[in-house]
Amino acid sequence: MDRLSIVKIGGNVIEDPEQLLAFLKDFVQIAGAKILVHGGGKESTRMAERLGVATQMVEGRRVTDAEMLDLITMVYGGKINKKIVAALQSLRCDAVGLSGADGNSIRAEKRPVKEVDFGFVGDVTRVNGAFYRLLLGDGYVPVCCAITHDNQGQLFNTNADTIAASIAVEMSSEYDVALYYCFEKAGVLADVEDDRSVLRELTEVDFEHRKAQGTIVAGMIPKLKNCFDALHGGVKIVRVGGTGMIGGEDVCTEIVLNGRHDE
Amino acid sequence: MDRLSIVKIGGNVIEDPEQLLAFLKDFVQIAGAKILVHGGGKESTRMAERLGVATQMVEGRRVTDAEMLDLITMVYGGKINKKIVAALQSLRCDAVGLSGADGNSIRAEKRPVKEVDFGFVGDVTRVNGAFYRLLLGDGYVPVCCAITHDNQGQLFNTNADTIAASIAVEMSSEYDVALYYCFEKAGVLADVEDDRSVLRELTEVDFEHRKAQGTIVAGMIPKLKNCFDALHGGVKIVRVGGTGMIGGEDVCTEIVLNGRHDE
Repeated sequence: MDRLSIVKIGGNVIEDPEQLLAFLKDFVQIAGAKILVHGGGKESTRMAERLGVATQMVEGRRVTDAEMLDLITMVYGGKINKKIVAALQSLRCDAVGLSGADGNSIRAEKRPVKEVDFGFVGDVTRVNGAFYRLLLGDGYVPVCCAITHDNQGQLFNTNADTIAASIAVEMSSEYDVALYYCFEKAGVLADVEDDRSVLRELTEVDFEHRKAQGTIVAGMIPKLKNCFDALHGGVKIVRVGGTGMIGGEDVCTEIVLNGRHDE
Repeated sequence: MDRLSIVKIGGNVIEDPEQLLAFLKDFVQIAGAKILVHGGGKESTRMAERLGVATQMVEGRRVTDAEMLDLITMVYGGKINKKIVAALQSLRCDAVGLSGADGNSIRAEKRPVKEVDFGFVGDVTRVNGAFYRLLLGDGYVPVCCAITHDNQGQLFNTNADTIAASIAVEMSSEYDVALYYCFEKAGVLADVEDDRSVLRELTEVDFEHRKAQGTIVAGMIPKLKNCFDALHGGVKIVRVGGTGMIGGEDVCTEIVLNGRHDE
């Protein structure tokens, strides 16, 4: 099978134009088919402040009302997505910016209301692999923002890590998929206080152990759950680290189902 | 050759959700390959007011500085484009939202500075027909916003009428192209004061005559120039009118090179 690399970048990379360009230069060097998935992060919070739109957080997570959804659609789907696409084009990478509504590529349903109503937050239900294959087959590079739709006309704010994992799983039936989560650390840390304590490998058993111990906390837990979901879904390689891992220079954490991982 | 319908809608249709949905329902009924081109208009002016971004007009035209370009990219490329795409998807039309940077679909160069520097305003230099053909060939419906790029990383604000005409001309080598300009009037008026004075047909000679007479004025002049450019470039049918002309119910103005137009 052909190789497909799916790279997810977070808000910290996007925030800094120099860091973003350096990352994009590494990204275009990846051989073969590739997809970029991006969030938006602080840019939308800043725009919300300028527009006087209140950012409502419940249990550390943003509640997305209609006004916030409009704002996210503007910032993620418009400004950030098109800037990344234009920059990739300048590097001779034939990028195509997409939300999950485009080509019906990522369908979602409203997150069920339990204790909290997150508003227009969607959980992924279906990825249209045929659409990505059409683009990839002709050498185009999809650049996906963290927006989905319900196929009834409603857009949703959706977690970018989950989008990357969902696309990776869907594509794994036809490609050998490698999934890279780039964030502000060099990998999963053994000691949250020590940035140099990067684990070279993390198994599912080890993850559960460290979670119980309290050394893997907060946002790392759902991120790593996405990693293991991807592996269980047929994705071949999952790595978590800084943007430098794309070029193969920097250390990172290889996420594996069992130890002594061999492909 | 297969038929391709290219429809451009203006700000007035986009502004009104009910009118937009009614139009989109007619649009999806068009048989065969189709492309939608949209502007943004007042939404960006309103957003500029909310953000305190000054809208600088010179000779009735908007000057696009870096901040205004960001805003247009958010509003045209994000909010409006994705809302139209999601609405079309809900009508079972497999829409794909695009700026000119996506798939390197519409390249432009900065408008030369003469008396006025319009800033980040681009004039179309090249349309990537292969990309549209890839999508159309698989049944997807491109939805194009009025943003282009220079392939060097710079986005541009570009006239949506010109984008529609440029795509129409490029595609006319492989399709029988019909180009529809939908706007707030039912067609070109013989008497600007009388909305019912719609011309059924307008030839190039008649256009020059009415322009000299002063009965065709202001924004209608560049719009009609785009129409004649399209016809000279190989487009088969060009019509100007209200959104009702798409369904074939309402009168409109057929733009023709010569009288007694036969295809």
